[in-house]
Amino acid sequence: MAHSPETSLHLIADIEQCRGLGDLDLIEATLREAAIAARVTVLGVHLHHFGPGMGITGVALLAESHISIHTWPEHGIAAIDLFVCGLQADAKAGLEVIRRRLEGRIRLEKSISRLG
Amino acid sequence: MAHSPETSLHLIADIEQCRGLGDLDLIEATLREAAIAARVTVLGVHLHHFGPGMGITGVALLAESHISIHTWPEHGIAAIDLFVCGLQADAKAGLEVIRRRLEGRIRLEKSISRLG
Repeated sequence: MAHSPETSLHLIADIEQCRGLGDLDLIEATLREAAIAARVTVLGVHLHHFGPGMGITGVALLAESHISIHTWPEHGIAAIDLFVCGLQADAKAGLEVIRRRLEGRIRLEKSISRLG
Repeated sequence: MAHSPETSLHLIADIEQCRGLGDLDLIEATLREAAIAARVTVLGVHLHHFGPGMGITGVALLAESHISIHTWPEHGIAAIDLFVCGLQADAKAGLEVIRRRLEGRIRLEKSISRLG
């Protein structure tokens, strides 16, 4: 990894009452915008759509770890992880972009220090 | 996603005193073996090597969410997430495969119910 491990922060959030959870273009754009807001560098975005009416699973691999998303459109919920390292990274700003883009409400949020 | 969200379990672990953390083939094989042990289905494995002597960041996208790994060979540490859903999934068995393959010791382990 490109940054010191002791700066690692893992921000976990479940978001409810979301829209757009089956929209592949929206989910990719959301991951990329979240990375910009979080001040991290995207190495690649990898997505899988489970089919019409179904959800998406995806990850943005970062120079600073990853942002992942798993969605259930039929329930309006998405599970988000922002695992970042480096003192410049702002996981919370990335999460706020995702919540706003999906027009959802945070149900669960936890911040975990990793590798400290 | 392919499984009910309320069955989601997120197992987080930091592992220390590991070997092989810069070996791309080993890391890919480890992710695939962990998925078999966890009884989950791999959709794709995506890896990035930061260069000679440096770490790897990677993810196995699953029909049941994801397994991610971030490694720091210079410190002998790896950060692992196994996010799975479905009653058949066994994240703990997947983690044990990873720990054994990397010959490491668990420093931190947390199990978090998601979307419950």
